[in-house]
Amino acid sequence: VAGQDRESPEDRLIARFFKPLATHPGALGLADDTAFVSAPEGSDLVLTTDAVVAGVHFLPGDPPGMVARKALRVNLSDLAAKGARPLGFLLSLAIAAETGEKWLQAFSDGLKVDCEEFGVALFGGDTVRTPGPVTISVFALGALPRRTMARRAGAKAGDRVFVSGSVGDGALGLRLHRERALAARWKLSEAAADHLRMRYQLPQPRVRLAEAVRDHASASMDISDGLAGDLAKLCRVSGVSATIEVARVPLSDGARAAIAADNALTETILTGGDDYEILCTVPAERAGSFVAAAGNARVAVTEIGEVVSGDAAPVFRDANGKALTFTRPSFSHF
Amino acid sequence: VAGQDRESPEDRLIARFFKPLATHPGALGLADDTAFVSAPEGSDLVLTTDAVVAGVHFLPGDPPGMVARKALRVNLSDLAAKGARPLGFLLSLAIAAETGEKWLQAFSDGLKVDCEEFGVALFGGDTVRTPGPVTISVFALGALPRRTMARRAGAKAGDRVFVSGSVGDGALGLRLHRERALAARWKLSEAAADHLRMRYQLPQPRVRLAEAVRDHASASMDISDGLAGDLAKLCRVSGVSATIEVARVPLSDGARAAIAADNALTETILTGGDDYEILCTVPAERAGSFVAAAGNARVAVTEIGEVVSGDAAPVFRDANGKALTFTRPSFSHF
Repeated sequence: VAGQDRESPEDRLIARFFKPLATHPGALGLADDTAFVSAPEGSDLVLTTDAVVAGVHFLPGDPPGMVARKALRVNLSDLAAKGARPLGFLLSLAIAAETGEKWLQAFSDGLKVDCEEFGVALFGGDTVRTPGPVTISVFALGALPRRTMARRAGAKAGDRVFVSGSVGDGALGLRLHRERALAARWKLSEAAADHLRMRYQLPQPRVRLAEAVRDHASASMDISDGLAGDLAKLCRVSGVSATIEVARVPLSDGARAAIAADNALTETILTGGDDYEILCTVPAERAGSFVAAAGNARVAVTEIGEVVSGDAAPVFRDANGKALTFTRPSFSHF
Repeated sequence: VAGQDRESPEDRLIARFFKPLATHPGALGLADDTAFVSAPEGSDLVLTTDAVVAGVHFLPGDPPGMVARKALRVNLSDLAAKGARPLGFLLSLAIAAETGEKWLQAFSDGLKVDCEEFGVALFGGDTVRTPGPVTISVFALGALPRRTMARRAGAKAGDRVFVSGSVGDGALGLRLHRERALAARWKLSEAAADHLRMRYQLPQPRVRLAEAVRDHASASMDISDGLAGDLAKLCRVSGVSATIEVARVPLSDGARAAIAADNALTETILTGGDDYEILCTVPAERAGSFVAAAGNARVAVTEIGEVVSGDAAPVFRDANGKALTFTRPSFSHF
């Protein structure tokens, strides 16, 4: 019977672009309805999902490989901040009529690079057509020893506040993507501007820090909506407040140069979002062990302040001890 | 600091509409970045995702509660066909600017009904705004004893072909939704027309059949793209063919009445999709045990044909032994 035995366009698309990412035997080469994976003994599974929409979270002209990698990485960042080791992910992809093979090839090539970099595999997915913008949902699955997930709630007065890497690069990078002339106004070197733009486009999930977080943090989350806003969330669910010394917040060379040119960028850096660094609190007596464990994991961590009692919003103090006020304390795409 | 300590609009939306569904303690009331759930000992996890787009997979005016339930149910149907017990799900929801609280309330109310009916909970999710149509991705997680997942591949010549429930109702129901005058042309009672429309809108995942499938089926999948097309897929990956007796394909009263009025609807019924019944093959010597196990699970199953050797497309024979030909053998939204 004509056609009855042929693969559908969707099957062909999956076989061509996504089967190469399905390296786990339980993914069955994406030729089945579901995937299976052994439940790790003595573990808790950690589950998360994040979605991105063209025109909202990325620009339709952005390199598809970068879009794919960021969509995966923001999920890996969530797992890392909770102390989990990533196992793999599923991909729900709504593509537009004009989404061609070139886009899909670049998208899947990007995913493949990160599957290898982070040791994860594609377990499955669904591909549908949409009359709207390309929409990408990644569902990531991780594991950790039972009952050890780091939570947002748990910070206690006296705990030290730590962040990984450097803060604010993503927010500055986004502004540079949107307005190229800013690089000159901020007196950035070509390398510094490139670095900031890349930090927006390709965040670095701190997967290697997961174990240190799990072992030492009293509370933890990743920074996606800005240090100030996300710290406020962590403090609120923990029932505490915090005092941050802005001078101690770790900055990249580019961010430092930008602030030197325009001091108002301090607010962008502290509230802008797209950091995908880990923000965690660590009991004072474990701070040394945490720093040592982070060092062993080759992830920079910096103590930026202290958890204090009370239910006020966290205070960000400048070098003179003056509390900063923000016009827009937390970034939200919503 | 004004605003810094307030919940975001997204947080408020999640707390209001989705927190009531997060009844698993590891979901932490959706107030954390991820959820955790104990990995069931000695089990394999089964993972699946399906996405639906307004205007493509459902109509923007469809009742939101029904849309939600169907989005969940098609995933539960996948798990059931693989022999898995559902554990829970995550929801990635892209809502439009005009998606109001009334829509969200009805959507989450619908989900809640099905969470209770099928004993699953919402583990987490992500809600984003889209300038395009509402897009819903559900990621479902199930479990089954290690190495027991029923696969598409595995059918062998001589195995019996079974389907659950009745076939074709969803496809007829979709046509009735689109063209109300068809009910009269097909000489359907009001009850029969309602039944068919409901079968499209609210498929019945055969969750209770999972154990029987796992214990007895040599191959299994759920029918989402039509019996003919999905059987062709199962046969292709199994390296076999099949012969189906069309007269044995189980039909609802409504489908039977529709065929009596218009015999050409046989093709719609066999190829139309949206069945969400289980299609499986069972070794001949286990057919009796499978039927008995299905009876214990209170799910109707019907033997409709036999697996045969060869790589030809499955043959559907009418009551005179004549092979049917289909103009459009498999439904695809893609």
